Amino acid sequence: MVNSRAGRPPGPSQVRDRLIAAGTRQFMERGYDRATVRSIAQEAGVDHAMVNYWFGSKEGLLRAVMDVLITPGEVIDRVLARRPADLATALLTAAVSLWDRPEVAAGFRALLREGIDEGPGHRLVQEYIGRRLVARLEEVIGGRDAAARAAAAAAIMSGLLLTRYVLRIEPIARLSGDEVVRACAPSLRIALEGSRPRPRPRDA
Amino acid sequence: MVNSRAGRPPGPSQVRDRLIAAGTRQFMERGYDRATVRSIAQEAGVDHAMVNYWFGSKEGLLRAVMDVLITPGEVIDRVLARRPADLATALLTAAVSLWDRPEVAAGFRALLREGIDEGPGHRLVQEYIGRRLVARLEEVIGGRDAAARAAAAAAIMSGLLLTRYVLRIEPIARLSGDEVVRACAPSLRIALEGSRPRPRPRDA
Repeated sequence: MVNSRAGRPPGPSQVRDRLIAAGTRQFMERGYDRATVRSIAQEAGVDHAMVNYWFGSKEGLLRAVMDVLITPGEVIDRVLARRPADLATALLTAAVSLWDRPEVAAGFRALLREGIDEGPGHRLVQEYIGRRLVARLEEVIGGRDAAARAAAAAAIMSGLLLTRYVLRIEPIARLSGDEVVRACAPSLRIALEGSRPRPRPRDA
Repeated sequence: MVNSRAGRPPGPSQVRDRLIAAGTRQFMERGYDRATVRSIAQEAGVDHAMVNYWFGSKEGLLRAVMDVLITPGEVIDRVLARRPADLATALLTAAVSLWDRPEVAAGFRALLREGIDEGPGHRLVQEYIGRRLVARLEEVIGGRDAAARAAAAAAIMSGLLLTRYVLRIEPIARLSGDEVVRACAPSLRIALEGSRPRPRPRDA
């Protein structure tokens, strides 16, 4: 199965995306030491020199993978640590400024490609979004129907990512970051709080 | 380019998805008559007998493609023709009952796979969602910032599709259709109406 993608000639940005996807899978499944530059390149169906070309080293690839896998969770943690008065706006502002970095969008594109097809990549994406993001959000917002509200919030954030960054649908792709935050914040706020407003934590 | 995918051995459900994606592209680009069963199967990288196996005939494949491509637009048209008091709930109810049909989710999965990679499939998905769905919604909701509100609404619908039907993230994947409508309707309503409620059309 390792070389199942080798027949499809990859373009330059696909090489990078596929190395991130293969690196993600191998680092998660084998651990950093046992996942070699060669095994990752082989799984991605590209020459192993491409790892150095795109990431400098195996460690550089790990940083790229972690950026993609870990940062969104850190964004939630960082935003929550500030106990913002308006959690929706704070989350959206943090997410948009992160996702506007081209390499993050490319990483999500790679992960989404994994997530659509069946296989280990699919389960990885499911578990990462489900456990690390939705479950964390559910814990934080609490209260009645927290699971359904966290799910609705995750759908909104995922939909923003899909339409603006992956599919680049107009007009959302050409709005400024501020306009996106303004357009989506009311919906995200309702998802997080439920339709009857609850008292919100204030800035200390 | 026609055979660029032939090196990746497709599983059974991928065969169907890829025939729908190839059929979509060829019907749109060449028209129904010039797109042959052979050319579509060749582009999908599968034997042409698979068209009859999965769809009965070229016409059956066209119906499957149209189901995927046209029905969501028809759903909007049908919902709007009724002038529902609660447009958000009506749209979500219609969409969820449509998307809960497994073959529709499979078609969207194929289109999304196209949409993620660069190429004609990407542009097709962009144009379809952007022009047929978002622009139609913008026209219908009207008023200040209609484009941004239509974009936010499209992000919510796309995010629901992605998290529940394509990635099957928990808990949204296991909620009942009614629970999904209840969880997402307040957010979609705010997106469609803006944060200050506007007078809504009533049922005749």
